[in-house]
Amino acid sequence: MSSPAVDPPSPVVDPTDPAFALHRGGKLAVASTVPLTTREDLSLAYTPGVARVCEAIAADPALVDEYTWVSHTVAVVTDGSAVLGLGNIGPRAAMPVMEGKAVLFKQFGGVDAVPVCLDTQDVDEIVAVVTALAPSFGGINLEDISAPRCFEIERRLDEALSIPVFHDDQHGTAVVVLAALRNAATLLNRKLGDLRVVVSGAGAAGVAVTKMLVAGGVNPAEVVVCDSRGILHRDRTDLTATKAELAELTNSAGRAGGMVEALRGADVLIGVSGGQIPEEALAGMTPGGAIFALANPTPEVHPEVAARYAAVVATGRSDYPNQINNVLAFPGIFRGALAARAVRITEGMKVAAADAIAAVAVEGEWDGTTAVAAGQLRADAIMPSPLDPRVAPAVADAVAEAARRDGVARA
Amino acid sequence: MSSPAVDPPSPVVDPTDPAFALHRGGKLAVASTVPLTTREDLSLAYTPGVARVCEAIAADPALVDEYTWVSHTVAVVTDGSAVLGLGNIGPRAAMPVMEGKAVLFKQFGGVDAVPVCLDTQDVDEIVAVVTALAPSFGGINLEDISAPRCFEIERRLDEALSIPVFHDDQHGTAVVVLAALRNAATLLNRKLGDLRVVVSGAGAAGVAVTKMLVAGGVNPAEVVVCDSRGILHRDRTDLTATKAELAELTNSAGRAGGMVEALRGADVLIGVSGGQIPEEALAGMTPGGAIFALANPTPEVHPEVAARYAAVVATGRSDYPNQINNVLAFPGIFRGALAARAVRITEGMKVAAADAIAAVAVEGEWDGTTAVAAGQLRADAIMPSPLDPRVAPAVADAVAEAARRDGVARA
Repeated sequence: MSSPAVDPPSPVVDPTDPAFALHRGGKLAVASTVPLTTREDLSLAYTPGVARVCEAIAADPALVDEYTWVSHTVAVVTDGSAVLGLGNIGPRAAMPVMEGKAVLFKQFGGVDAVPVCLDTQDVDEIVAVVTALAPSFGGINLEDISAPRCFEIERRLDEALSIPVFHDDQHGTAVVVLAALRNAATLLNRKLGDLRVVVSGAGAAGVAVTKMLVAGGVNPAEVVVCDSRGILHRDRTDLTATKAELAELTNSAGRAGGMVEALRGADVLIGVSGGQIPEEALAGMTPGGAIFALANPTPEVHPEVAARYAAVVATGRSDYPNQINNVLAFPGIFRGALAARAVRITEGMKVAAADAIAAVAVEGEWDGTTAVAAGQLRADAIMPSPLDPRVAPAVADAVAEAARRDGVARA
Repeated sequence: MSSPAVDPPSPVVDPTDPAFALHRGGKLAVASTVPLTTREDLSLAYTPGVARVCEAIAADPALVDEYTWVSHTVAVVTDGSAVLGLGNIGPRAAMPVMEGKAVLFKQFGGVDAVPVCLDTQDVDEIVAVVTALAPSFGGINLEDISAPRCFEIERRLDEALSIPVFHDDQHGTAVVVLAALRNAATLLNRKLGDLRVVVSGAGAAGVAVTKMLVAGGVNPAEVVVCDSRGILHRDRTDLTATKAELAELTNSAGRAGGMVEALRGADVLIGVSGGQIPEEALAGMTPGGAIFALANPTPEVHPEVAARYAAVVATGRSDYPNQINNVLAFPGIFRGALAARAVRITEGMKVAAADAIAAVAVEGEWDGTTAVAAGQLRADAIMPSPLDPRVAPAVADAVAEAARRDGVARA
């Protein structure tokens, strides 16, 4: 028997799923921004003309920002160890997400992003590889790298490199959560510093969210963070260094126990864990607060259940109101950081980004063509739409200004 | 005194040089190939739709070729150690060349190429970095890496990776030289196997050119290779391993001495060294042969001088006839290798590329719009124009066919 001329369709591909049709051939291309039709074009864009530009950069390295694409380019780097909610699926299976991220960087931030999926999950190797790559990029967006490795990787790269390094799963999430909490607090007529906040999840996102909320004005003494074993407190002996640091920072009352104990009297619940939260725990919250249940696709609390216990409810999903989506943050943050030639991304830049996102929602909703004046903030519109074109420029301006204020800007 | 509000113009930038105007902002952009204007678009290109594509690739890794950009993407990797004729100018100053290469890849081969300029010149580190990057790309084009490190880097990557690895300074140059020699031999009514050939230069290009000519039909016994100290022969004790291998392969007569001795009775001189060759040495060549003086911008022999001693003269310059330019080779070679999903690039694929390039020149010149039938090959048109759009598709088809013939194709 001869082998079949055409391979049978793969059993893992659903031919009726439009996601597969859309992804055929990938989602990115590299484009030339210069003409190349004559010998003269060729002699300027390539040899011999290009050599004069190379010599100028060799003599004055700062010219690389002006005469190459580096200053508007970001690497989206992953090791495929914690991709979406899919877990450790490796660098090849992670590529569609990184391409998607690059599409969003371009569409919303005008930033040229290159997916870099690494065939190693060793911390030292990842740091060495990204350090070696750094001259090629204006910034490094780390993506979908599992905790606790992501903390060390980001810290070491941030120290080693003089370009922005930003782990979006941590800080992008933290920025959009702070933006949402700002507007929720306004609606609830409460000050951030007076809110009692529970963060469910002490992984990459939970750690960053907690620190960001504190940077934004939440009182750390009134924050309680839970991991899968319950409340983080100073007497727990099973904590990683990062969690021990959080236990020290938060929960000054020394609460112990599980979600029921954590939520008793809380004003705000922020779910970034994926673990389901039982309704009886929600019943202990102070009525009229806020619940952000961000796990995707299955929120920690179903939004209809959450609405029974909170006045403001947000999720990560696009099919419910108040979608809290990182795409509101990272394109503008990098656009602003690159515009200011920031050497790193400070807490002040992240807070500025959150404030800018919140301010756009206050200005009114985007109906697809124009902003609809809100008159006042609505409980079902505390966040701008992820497609709102006003967001990234506003974030970029705020971030660039904060970079200059914080003394990390080179332009 | 206050500092000036505007920096003075850099003394290394010539504002009247159009190369600087052209390079402002760089020469590349990343483009999205999918729509992203509605929530539905976002939910297919990014979460939640993208997760289904990731899961499919995790289950069947071969799907990465179909549903990501990897299979049409090449990394252009350098350490900035041997950039054009400028030497070791480092990764940042090398970027304009790598961007230019990416522009040429796209324009002629339809290949999406990403510049990767590395902040290390350590062989082990370069091999580790490129190995880690490999899942992100369909092929690796090494560029402007100095000899002898380039030999080891390419060999080790070729062994480690199951995607094509190609050092263009070696093999791209070798392919276009073989193409030119094929057509020169036709014009001179000589067989390749009967020609006495001198290669001036035993660096990256000289080594590869010599091996390629032998693969293409030149008799190695009749080849003499010179480095800066003279003819390579078996009795020299100052040779690197690579040069010793060349001394073993070539020069069966055991000639010794300098360029005068090398060229005595030679039919063909191929200069890939940059070192000037004195006219008195040329005088010893057999009249009516060929001189290819490829150093750029200053050929080893001025073409007008060369014309006194040879019937066919070629250079690397665009302002003389018979430009021997790598751009005729690398876009089509990678396009063909990627189309065949070749796991590496074989000698057969390179010879096929050379033959395809030579054949286009035989078909007639490109006048900018159409091919002008040649009737017969002309001594001032042995190579197609670097802008000739027929070349890359012809090379790609020949290379893909050779990949299948050589058993290295996966498609």
